[in-house]
Amino acid sequence: MCDYHCRFLGPGSAYHCQGIKGLRDAIASGIASRDGFPANADDIFLTGGASLGVHMIMQLLIRNEKDGILCPVPQYPLYSASIPLHGGALVPYYLDESRGWALEISDLKKQLEDACSKCIDVRALVVINPGNPTGQVLSEDNQYDIVKFCKTEGLILLADEVYQDNIFVDNIKFHSFKKITRFMGHGEDDLPLVSFQSASKGSYGECGKRGGYMKITGFSAPVREQIYKIASVNLCPNISGQILASLVMNPPKPGDESYASYKAEKDGILQSLARRAKALEDAFNSLEGFTCNKAEGAMYLFPKIHLPLKAIEAAKAAKKAPDVFYVLRLLESTGIVVVPGSGFGQVPGTWHIRCSILPPEDKIPTLICHLKAFHEAFMAEYRDQIVDMV
Amino acid sequence: MCDYHCRFLGPGSAYHCQGIKGLRDAIASGIASRDGFPANADDIFLTGGASLGVHMIMQLLIRNEKDGILCPVPQYPLYSASIPLHGGALVPYYLDESRGWALEISDLKKQLEDACSKCIDVRALVVINPGNPTGQVLSEDNQYDIVKFCKTEGLILLADEVYQDNIFVDNIKFHSFKKITRFMGHGEDDLPLVSFQSASKGSYGECGKRGGYMKITGFSAPVREQIYKIASVNLCPNISGQILASLVMNPPKPGDESYASYKAEKDGILQSLARRAKALEDAFNSLEGFTCNKAEGAMYLFPKIHLPLKAIEAAKAAKKAPDVFYVLRLLESTGIVVVPGSGFGQVPGTWHIRCSILPPEDKIPTLICHLKAFHEAFMAEYRDQIVDMV
Repeated sequence: MCDYHCRFLGPGSAYHCQGIKGLRDAIASGIASRDGFPANADDIFLTGGASLGVHMIMQLLIRNEKDGILCPVPQYPLYSASIPLHGGALVPYYLDESRGWALEISDLKKQLEDACSKCIDVRALVVINPGNPTGQVLSEDNQYDIVKFCKTEGLILLADEVYQDNIFVDNIKFHSFKKITRFMGHGEDDLPLVSFQSASKGSYGECGKRGGYMKITGFSAPVREQIYKIASVNLCPNISGQILASLVMNPPKPGDESYASYKAEKDGILQSLARRAKALEDAFNSLEGFTCNKAEGAMYLFPKIHLPLKAIEAAKAAKKAPDVFYVLRLLESTGIVVVPGSGFGQVPGTWHIRCSILPPEDKIPTLICHLKAFHEAFMAEYRDQIVDMV
Repeated sequence: MCDYHCRFLGPGSAYHCQGIKGLRDAIASGIASRDGFPANADDIFLTGGASLGVHMIMQLLIRNEKDGILCPVPQYPLYSASIPLHGGALVPYYLDESRGWALEISDLKKQLEDACSKCIDVRALVVINPGNPTGQVLSEDNQYDIVKFCKTEGLILLADEVYQDNIFVDNIKFHSFKKITRFMGHGEDDLPLVSFQSASKGSYGECGKRGGYMKITGFSAPVREQIYKIASVNLCPNISGQILASLVMNPPKPGDESYASYKAEKDGILQSLARRAKALEDAFNSLEGFTCNKAEGAMYLFPKIHLPLKAIEAAKAAKKAPDVFYVLRLLESTGIVVVPGSGFGQVPGTWHIRCSILPPEDKIPTLICHLKAFHEAFMAEYRDQIVDMV
């Protein structure tokens, strides 16, 4: 009879728009075992990558240009693209570079007040943990404070947790915001929370499969109906991506036949990423004018570069932002591509580059060699004579 | 060096947001051999199913509630969902059921004038060919007139051509709007046209893979840049869907090793679909109060049902639209699911059901048997006595 149901409705309706129930059950069970709290398959919406979940939520939250979303700066540009695309206002808060890209509640409060004074109705707070492009991992205490802030201010917490499996530091652990809210005693209906996960990161990195999910809790039935309606307009996400997302949340377990080889492969990849991150961090910190925070997680470094005045003048003459000028010169000289910090947002007057830690490990020494040679030549060309003579 | 490029940018940027170039080349070559006119891979945007392409275009076209899109009624509800979702106005035009769901240019003109008188700025015309849910295939002459209408009125033509491989009538052929415009002598820049194709239909029917593409021609460089920007926000569609979309447009050819088995399978599926469509059409036409147009293509029948007054009163008492009331009764009695016409739009005061032709062929006789028994019982319960006595 099920066959009749699907088939008479037509091909597009052959799968549930939230994703296949059995796969959502598997994800819910993976979340429950990660967090130590029960999770419900009905709260899960499988999506064609985490980005599409973020778009769906922005589409729902933003009514007009007076609706604001608090977002970290620097920040993965999905948010700076999707918020204006859906007609809303990005309300920035600044991560503190001098304290390892720490998220300061005092800055959240300040930015919220500023936005209110401009009649912006701030509806949600985006937190990226581990940070992209900044690589910091939030402490539990910080997470408690963030949840309290959202609760007090009536904000929806949008937790971008796609790098949860990429942590490189032994004494640091990922804690999901779902778990933190439950630890704090908040129940299913206490705090609206959307968490995003992806099959594109971790040690699996299956980005071409476009698998991911969002998990929603704390929303009323009428709001959930609207989320469901938006999901149904998109039909279902692709099935292989759905399967991968369920596997990401249910990897082989101790006792399973494939556990040993899975563990060895995963540890190998993550340890190699940690070594690559360290090698690149050290390299940047050895370069004149660069300072680079340690990446605790994610896949990137976001070093600050103090550019000489002469380079800034040359950039202006070339009608480029100084960081864009630098990365284009790097590309032309070495073939190495990094992204200018202005693509992610930065404190005005500071310049950064975002560098992924993904090049093959055996190529990193050569790459660093090219980077150093380029940077030395660049500085030789543009170094400020006055500063040099002091 | 390419590895550095991709890897340093991070995992999300590892693939081109329009889709893999080699696959777009293959699709362009498939389009060229289908139409007999050259096609350019740069005009192709692979999408996670045709629906996502439609959403992208609606997002681009609609600025506010005064922007209108001309859409057929009845019509696949993707359009009635996505146009209001993006804040625009759906301007309906009515297909003529008495003439086999013909598209009348006179009605297009009338609806366009009506919309203009309400200060709606109509920006585009949606044509679904073959029709969904109506199954008609446009004649070449009708297509010429549609193109002329768009050209005269300055409208963008949005051609939903996802059922191009589902045509069941020997003397009827599919002609793409791209080909028609070229036949008429319009060049690349003469008429803005977006055509949508999917890997979910035809004889392949890989709907769970979410593969499709849109092909854009006739847009200026700044507009194309905006389309590219929107595509880039969504990163890339899933790779298996991309591959499938390229295979759909490049099936095995005479001389290829697999051609004979491919041809046999494809013909078998399409001939079976044609038999199923005919059997269901005949069944509906044999039922009291039903009239059903022939499906020339696509995967559906959209029969009209003349419901007795007593049934309409019973529906009102149950707070349901009459067609919804009928299909729920059918579902409860037989387990057969069809969709009420009100989900697709219909001339006010008329009622329809949409029935797909996809149930397995060997189950169709039993299904028709259940349908007939249900309908006879339904009519026995609700038949208008007055009409009956005439």
